[in-house]
Amino acid sequence: KHILIVPGDGIGQEVTAVGKKVLDKIAVKFGHTFTYDEALIGHVAIEATGNPLPDESLEKMRKSDAVLFGAVGHPKYDNDPSAKVRPEQGLLKMRKELGLYANLRPIKLFDELLEASSIKPEILKGADILFFRELTGDIYFGEKGRKNNGDTAYDIAEYSRYEVERIARKAFDAARTRRKKLCSVDKANVIETSRLWREVVQKVALEYPDVEVEHQFVDATAMLLIKDPRRFDVVVTANLFGDILTDEASQIAGSMGMLASASIGDGTGVYEPIHGSAHDITGMGVANPLASILSAALLLDISFNMKAESETVIKAVENVLKEGFRTRDIANAQTPADKILGTAAMG
Amino acid sequence: KHILIVPGDGIGQEVTAVGKKVLDKIAVKFGHTFTYDEALIGHVAIEATGNPLPDESLEKMRKSDAVLFGAVGHPKYDNDPSAKVRPEQGLLKMRKELGLYANLRPIKLFDELLEASSIKPEILKGADILFFRELTGDIYFGEKGRKNNGDTAYDIAEYSRYEVERIARKAFDAARTRRKKLCSVDKANVIETSRLWREVVQKVALEYPDVEVEHQFVDATAMLLIKDPRRFDVVVTANLFGDILTDEASQIAGSMGMLASASIGDGTGVYEPIHGSAHDITGMGVANPLASILSAALLLDISFNMKAESETVIKAVENVLKEGFRTRDIANAQTPADKILGTAAMG
Ligand SMILES: CC(C)[C@H](C(=O)O)[C@@H](O)C(=O)O
Ligand SMILES: CC(C)[C@H](C(=O)O)[C@@H](O)C(=O)O
Repeated sequence: KHILIVPGDGIGQEVTAVGKKVLDKIAVKFGHTFTYDEALIGHVAIEATGNPLPDESLEKMRKSDAVLFGAVGHPKYDNDPSAKVRPEQGLLKMRKELGLYANLRPIKLFDELLEASSIKPEILKGADILFFRELTGDIYFGEKGRKNNGDTAYDIAEYSRYEVERIARKAFDAARTRRKKLCSVDKANVIETSRLWREVVQKVALEYPDVEVEHQFVDATAMLLIKDPRRFDVVVTANLFGDILTDEASQIAGSMGMLASASIGDGTGVYEPIHGSAHDITGMGVANPLASILSAALLLDISFNMKAESETVIKAVENVLKEGFRTRDIANAQTPADKILGTAAMG
Repeated sequence: KHILIVPGDGIGQEVTAVGKKVLDKIAVKFGHTFTYDEALIGHVAIEATGNPLPDESLEKMRKSDAVLFGAVGHPKYDNDPSAKVRPEQGLLKMRKELGLYANLRPIKLFDELLEASSIKPEILKGADILFFRELTGDIYFGEKGRKNNGDTAYDIAEYSRYEVERIARKAFDAARTRRKKLCSVDKANVIETSRLWREVVQKVALEYPDVEVEHQFVDATAMLLIKDPRRFDVVVTANLFGDILTDEASQIAGSMGMLASASIGDGTGVYEPIHGSAHDITGMGVANPLASILSAALLLDISFNMKAESETVIKAVENVLKEGFRTRDIANAQTPADKILGTAAMG
């Protein structure tokens, strides 16, 4: 199996190095041969080549069996709204070119972290949500620009029936293997793409009579996720709503630093933490590598169908947490100082 | 002063009746004369006239000194994505026609409700956020429709410099009277309207050197609101992001049933709870009227400049909570049964 390592920007570099080490260990333990290559994306790619996703990187992605990804982003561009070339363009192009239309974000709290969240433990205990975020459509990829001498900006959100259908099917299929509940999130009382979304999900639902379906508005969902996270099993939603809701839901898992994701679709799968480049802590060696490690576990499971290997990684994370080890983001006032580890030590 | 009562749909009817009673009491107590009229909007207006906002209602709104509003919406339309006439169209038309471009949503936890939230009290204590949601632009009001024989849906999001400027100024002005911190929320790493938004806020910020400004992405904000609500003072954001984030932030105040809002702009101001029509509890007499009552307090303060009157209402709410009275949504396992009140009794 050939794995491409794409660390990208900020703490992406630090945590992906740890994720790779875990893959290495699994190969040894289970007698696999994993070969690796590296590729550039984001700000580091712009600095080196002028291009946030050089053709060479894309070629390497296409040829690999799976990609372990870090993050993209840099404050330099965030503070300059008129920048023409941006790290995020590399990420979006990768998603589009590889046809990664389904982004799976499992939100599950390790029992050991019950106290790490800002939400009350009795509200959280047992929460277990699997998000399916559509990843190659919506306002992210529609035409955008300026008119009236630059005084008006516009973005077009778009969805076709086909795009909604394929992500809905993936979500329903997953619901069948879980608690058989699916919540589709939209804003159908205002937005036309949401009305198409709801129409299509209602239709696909007919093929899954064993799955209980509800439709929620995105605003109500943002509230319910915090008020009663256990009411959700599988959640399927559009690209922008998924971006917002999954970041919010990270608080259910105690910290963004715990959340892995899988982007899958037509070809090579891409596995990445959802935390982003976090330049405020870059280079300090304190970033939580568990999201990258858990992304490696998803990679083993989904792209390589190596269930035991994936389980071994998850168990290892659990054990380390049980032994009381924490990175800064998941530590609390009760954590003894000698149990608070940096990125490499946690790995 | 002439006040128009527009209860709309679902629990809007029940809670607005209570809000009006409170205005009545204030008139008596302070020696004012308030006259009232009623108007239709939403599903009830469609049933009566076929139109979610009849011209007559709009005329009455224009002529009144302030509007106390309930909610619009009905499950009938939610489950029928192809419905051509919808209650929400009435609400959106009202906002546009009255030029209500600034929607103020204060999020403040009454100390008595510290335990009512799903968020830990130690995270919440002291949280006090004032949202400025832009209310007449964005994807809500851009062109929307279908193409490719109905197989593709689209919505256009749009903002002009002028629209961003005027809401930004309102938010900066408010920050000056508070803790002098402003957080502007966008998705400038992906969306063009957000890049214009950020550009304009950066420019307006130059006129307010005494206000500390930060720019956050909407996904990060959805996370930070729960992780650390006290870091926010004034938050300003676009229509759609504001819709999502303020519903989420309702959990900071313990319940949606506590949150009031003021929509202001070019003419008559409209005051409404943010909770919506809640058909699941309509007619049961259990809806929390405090959001409508607190909306009446905002009406007195903002449209009539009656500060003492407004304060009196807020104090009354505080006192009732101190005495232990709760509606169902803000009660907990420790609340004695005889302290749990219905809508009218709480009023
Ligand atoms: C970096 C950004 C473009 C990206 C997104 O919005 O999709 C990120 O927030 C994510 O969730 O992967
Ligand atoms: C009912 C709906 C159209 C409305 C909105 O999205 O603005 C509501 O959610 C609100 O926040 O006032």
